[in-house]
Amino acid sequence: MVFPFTRLSLSGERFSITYRLLAADEAGARARARGICLEQTVELPEEALAGDDIQAGVAGRIEALRPVAAGLFETVISYAVETAGAELTQLLNVIFGNSSMQPGIRVEELHLPDSLLALFKGPRLGRAGLRRLLAAPERPLLATALKPVGLPAAGLAGLARSFALGGIDIIKDDHGLADQTFAPFCDRVRRCAAAVAEANATTGYGCLYVANVTAPIDRLLERAYLAKEAGAGGLMIAPGLTGWDAARRLAEDDGLGLPLFCHPALLGSFVSGADRGIAHRVTFGQLPRLAGADAAIYVNYGGRFAFSREDCLAAAQASGLPLGRLRPGFPMPGGGMTLDRLPEMYRFYGRDIIFLVAGGLYTHGPDLQETARRFRERVEELTAGPP
Amino acid sequence: MVFPFTRLSLSGERFSITYRLLAADEAGARARARGICLEQTVELPEEALAGDDIQAGVAGRIEALRPVAAGLFETVISYAVETAGAELTQLLNVIFGNSSMQPGIRVEELHLPDSLLALFKGPRLGRAGLRRLLAAPERPLLATALKPVGLPAAGLAGLARSFALGGIDIIKDDHGLADQTFAPFCDRVRRCAAAVAEANATTGYGCLYVANVTAPIDRLLERAYLAKEAGAGGLMIAPGLTGWDAARRLAEDDGLGLPLFCHPALLGSFVSGADRGIAHRVTFGQLPRLAGADAAIYVNYGGRFAFSREDCLAAAQASGLPLGRLRPGFPMPGGGMTLDRLPEMYRFYGRDIIFLVAGGLYTHGPDLQETARRFRERVEELTAGPP
Repeated sequence: MVFPFTRLSLSGERFSITYRLLAADEAGARARARGICLEQTVELPEEALAGDDIQAGVAGRIEALRPVAAGLFETVISYAVETAGAELTQLLNVIFGNSSMQPGIRVEELHLPDSLLALFKGPRLGRAGLRRLLAAPERPLLATALKPVGLPAAGLAGLARSFALGGIDIIKDDHGLADQTFAPFCDRVRRCAAAVAEANATTGYGCLYVANVTAPIDRLLERAYLAKEAGAGGLMIAPGLTGWDAARRLAEDDGLGLPLFCHPALLGSFVSGADRGIAHRVTFGQLPRLAGADAAIYVNYGGRFAFSREDCLAAAQASGLPLGRLRPGFPMPGGGMTLDRLPEMYRFYGRDIIFLVAGGLYTHGPDLQETARRFRERVEELTAGPP
Repeated sequence: MVFPFTRLSLSGERFSITYRLLAADEAGARARARGICLEQTVELPEEALAGDDIQAGVAGRIEALRPVAAGLFETVISYAVETAGAELTQLLNVIFGNSSMQPGIRVEELHLPDSLLALFKGPRLGRAGLRRLLAAPERPLLATALKPVGLPAAGLAGLARSFALGGIDIIKDDHGLADQTFAPFCDRVRRCAAAVAEANATTGYGCLYVANVTAPIDRLLERAYLAKEAGAGGLMIAPGLTGWDAARRLAEDDGLGLPLFCHPALLGSFVSGADRGIAHRVTFGQLPRLAGADAAIYVNYGGRFAFSREDCLAAAQASGLPLGRLRPGFPMPGGGMTLDRLPEMYRFYGRDIIFLVAGGLYTHGPDLQETARRFRERVEELTAGPP
């Protein structure tokens, strides 16, 4: 069946996506790429669309195709900006909705024109803003997490106080702290924010307490505003649990006006193979910026997770590359990090990094404030020299 | 560091998750399982917790561990219900948040006690309710999709009319129809709902027009209510794009009171390997029911996607197995289906199925109403005999 000829009103602007494809040869790769062009837009076989403006304007278009290794190809496919319908949810759908269900396709990189990027505010503070807020113009920033789930709010606040007195910049809730009976959200956030404010009055530092507001859709804003009113200095959300658009909603809320931290919970399935999913540079570099995150947490290489050095570097770099007028965000690697690894991480990532050391502080010694002080001292010593 | 002894108030009720693990031997598998117990809860090394109530009550507990093949183990790990904090977002986090980032772990099945299931309303209509609504007590239900993106609202409504006149039960928007300029949401939904209502007046059938309301978080409810007011008979959402909790929010809204259909866009990365992600039976069987979907769309085996027969059957079965007082939902396989495959699919799935044939109707012949009529006729013929 051929649809009646339809003249579409299109701006001519297109965004494009780099995909990696498994295919036996170039002809096979081209057929797969053509399949993506249809799957991600019209979702109809070519014969149903022949000679139609819909095919010419709305179906994806292969802009490039090249072999990168035996059986592996890279293709760039462009789409009319209008297909994304000015919404992050539908943009994600065009990027990878149905193709996520086909084997041997990975999203490698997003290339978005200014007209599309203009739909997103991006990080509120970005790297420079967060540095200003923390009066740390040059050095890597220090972060840790409050845990474990099960500890009462007063216990978590006690940990927050020790970390803040020791000179940590950013103290975030563990992502497993939601609104459990052990330490209900309101109580926990009030106590932790107060403890950090008290410590700041002693130290003169501007340590931020970052509340985890990952929550059901109908409680998200309520929780974010409670956190702000309680004096939290930032918000954390796990887009894998809430959807990316929930992060965007928080980031763009001028009434909140707080820096936003993204946590990678449940996003691992997207980055679990070189031949599937969405590459680290997109998942932890580009998407967090579209969603307005000032920093994107991900798991570092060499810890108890399996991200490679290359994947971590690609994520960190993508968080700083030009992306329209969207500010750069901070990469925030964590997961099994220890103080001993700081020099190596500094050489690897450079200055624009947030070191997230959590378990590694808890097991370092019995005096958390002293451990935090050493963490800060080591980072300041490192920063005296080049990366 | 050992935390001060904390007496936790726990009900003693636990939920458990079956995971598959890659490991060289049983000792390795046990170490990995122990890692999950900590990773998904306290996220601290064992030595930081020794002798503590938190470890005893809050950390996960290995309930079973057995080899299933060379290098492959199955373990059942239980968690205190309190760790899930009475919220779907946090339940997902405990199930697989951080472990999604570790290689060789797959979520195979959820085992949730009634106290946890009581937090969720589940499908509003379920299989029996949807059958009543469509006056189809026994046969498989028929569904198709309106497409392609790019077609104006009047064109989509014309398709809807033809399909409804031909006797399709459920006519859904393609998941690529959001709020694009080609066919803005309001205009599209009003025209399509009206066209289906008009056709129903002619046929006497109760065909449902199902509007895709997948949208940014701050427009989701607005769009769902617009759809209801326009006369839509159901709502569709893609939880991969919005988060699962957005589906739950729609399903539990008594003001809406409409059946809910889940679309699998962007969920493919979760089911893309036997050694990672979240099994089909969970992603397309158990989670949609927790989120209140009356039917879960997934891609059928043997089409242009790569789901196996076993995976499809597991998803379909899980949608009907006992799950507390939550109603069973319909499995709704689609993706490259044709009318020729109906007998085989009927044998494979039985009566409790929604056949989603979309592209296969568009390419079957020029007269869509006639094609739809044949689709209905074939299903009715099939249903005269046993599966």
